Formats: sequence, structure tokens, C-alpha cells
Amino acid sequence: MYEGPVQDLIDELGRLPGVGPKSAQRIAFHLLAAEPADVNRLQEALQKVSDGVLFCEVCGNVSEQQRCRICQDARRDPALVCVVEEPKDVLAVERTGEFRGRYHVLGGALDPLSGVGPDQLRVRELMRRIGTDGITEVIIATDPNTEGEATATYLTRMLKEFPDLNVTRLASGLPMGGDLEFADELTLGRALSGRRDAS
Amino acid sequence: MYEGPVQDLIDELGRLPGVGPKSAQRIAFHLLAAEPADVNRLQEALQKVSDGVLFCEVCGNVSEQQRCRICQDARRDPALVCVVEEPKDVLAVERTGEFRGRYHVLGGALDPLSGVGPDQLRVRELMRRIGTDGITEVIIATDPNTEGEATATYLTRMLKEFPDLNVTRLASGLPMGGDLEFADELTLGRALSGRRDAS
Repeated sequence: MYEGPVQDLIDELGRLPGVGPKSAQRIAFHLLAAEPADVNRLQEALQKVSDGVLFCEVCGNVSEQQRCRICQDARRDPALVCVVEEPKDVLAVERTGEFRGRYHVLGGALDPLSGVGPDQLRVRELMRRIGTDGITEVIIATDPNTEGEATATYLTRMLKEFPDLNVTRLASGLPMGGDLEFADELTLGRALSGRRDAS
Repeated sequence: MYEGPVQDLIDELGRLPGVGPKSAQRIAFHLLAAEPADVNRLQEALQKVSDGVLFCEVCGNVSEQQRCRICQDARRDPALVCVVEEPKDVLAVERTGEFRGRYHVLGGALDPLSGVGPDQLRVRELMRRIGTDGITEVIIATDPNTEGEATATYLTRMLKEFPDLNVTRLASGLPMGGDLEFADELTLGRALSGRRDAS
């Protein structure tokens, strides 16, 4: 469509998730008109990420150092570990402000059709951690979808190896601010079977 | 939120037009997991654009050479010039397949509040081109908004300097596939005042 480097940039931008051809064109012309310093900052950020990002050697979260801030933070309860799929899930739990333990990032969820088995996830690291780190409770906080549920079931079975370990799951139920009428059957079913004493 | 280079990349991506914080995060984690070759291609495309893109010395469109493909194409009528604001407008007119003349890209529209006056646009180049290139008709195809209309009015006045030149504007009116009922007053008003003989 366009000639030369502009079209190359549009093509590359259009390959990014959630960026369609129109957005790619808009971003390309924005960059074309932008200050060179702005483009350079984007290039440097890309370079650093493509040079390799550090992952915390303990929990597997993205990190600036060998150990991430949370694993270094002595105020966080080391006996309580929340297992999540991705670094962005750590952020989601942190935003609640309700969790004072530490994390374990699996790096995905079991998905045999895409070739993701237990060996592709950081399951072995989790088992090793529990065996040595004095962990008393593991909260499994995988996504509430097929892959996440399968992963949670698998982990629950594996963690039976530690008889003194308390293994819990996030509660399923109605989202806050929602409307009973518009809840899907599965969610409402979970909310019913997970009902608790009114107090 | 995240540590180190990942957050830097999210911040930089979030500055692009149409990319919100969620998309920026999604793109950053996509790039983190992408093949190094994919990231490199994006980096190279950025590099080439930041090294400077060529603009056609005749029409001002983005180009691979001194002259763009359209200005080099002997089959395109050199006497007919369509004046547009941006390179992407060239593409829009080309897609119609209705235009066999050449282009003149202004590089924007008059917008005094943002400091864009005639000197910031390629108006002088247009005047020079008309004076020397044997152009018989100029079609002003600026955007149908305030800045575009102001630019068109300004150009029309300037082009009075050439008494033999035919200066035309794109027709305003109802968009095809639209619905009379949902047309805004301004568009419908233009469609009325611009009515033509039924033939």
C-alpha cells in the first residue's frame, strides 16, 4: 500500500495482538511525526526486553534482580504462597491489597493441545519450594477457565504429597456489582454450591 | 507496577495512539514471549522509520525514492492534481480506483491554535507546481471537518491567482449505504444544497 519502510512498520505493528491494520497505520504515522527521542525510548525498551528479562529465581515473576521485590520483602508472609498462571495475575492479586503472602508464577496453564504439559510450567520449582521453604498454605489462583481448572486439579493432586500443607482455591461465585439475573448458569451454580453461612 | 524493562516497555507502548494500559500490557507480554526474530523485525522497522523516511519531492507523499511511484507513473494524468492532507488520504483516494491523476500532500490542515499555518503546510510547493507543471485542474480533497474546510477555503482563495485553473472540491452529501433518517443535519443540509439533476 505505502512504499518502503512505512509499510514495513505498519505490517510489523499489525502483527501485535489487538492492533488491527487501521491502528497499525495510525501508530506508524504517529511515530513518523513523533520526536526522535520518543521513538528511541520505544526502541530502547524493546531492546532491553529482547535482550532478555530477568525472572525471579524464587517465584518466577518478572523482576529487575535475581529475586523480585516481593520475594525480598521480609514483611511478606513466606509461609503463604499464591500460585498464579502469569505475571499479570500477580498484579491482579496485588491490586486487591488483601494478600500479604508470596507468589509462585507457573508461566501458563496446562494445555495439552498446545503442547503445554507440567514440564512446561514451573511445577517442579513449586514442589521443591514447598519441600524446603516452610510453606504452610498454598492458594491455587489459576484462571477460572478450562485450562486453569485442569491446572488447579493437577496441582491439588500433586500437593497431596505434603500431608501438612493446607491447599486452598479462590472462591467461585457471583462477581461483585453484578446482577443475579445476568449471571451465567455455571457461575450461579458455583455460587450455590459454594454458599456459606450468613453471618 | 512491574519491575524493570517490562514496565518501561508497557509505558512506552501505552503512549502510542489507541493503545491503552491493558493493550500495552498485552503487547508487552506478547513480545516477551515472541520469537527474537519477530521482535528484531519490529525493531528494524522502527529503526528505518526513525532514520528518516523519504518523501516524494514532487507530491510530498511517503516514498521509497526521490519521486514516488505515482509521480513516476507516465500513465497518470499530470494535468489533474488531487490535494490531500496526509499520505493516508492518498491511499483512501487510490482505493476508489476512480482517480487517474496525481497528488499533492499538504502534510496537515490549517490549525492556527496548534500553530499550523500555511507555512507549515506544503502550500508554496503546490503554487510552484501549478505555475510550472501544466496543471489544468486541482481537486481539493481535504477532510470534511473545521480544519479541512478552512484549508480548502484558503487554498481556493490562493488558487484564484491562476485564472485558467479549474479548482474543484469533493462533493459533500449522504454517505452511500447510509440512511436518510440517521444523517446528521449538516450532512443532510450539504446534500440538499449540493443536489443535482436526476439523470
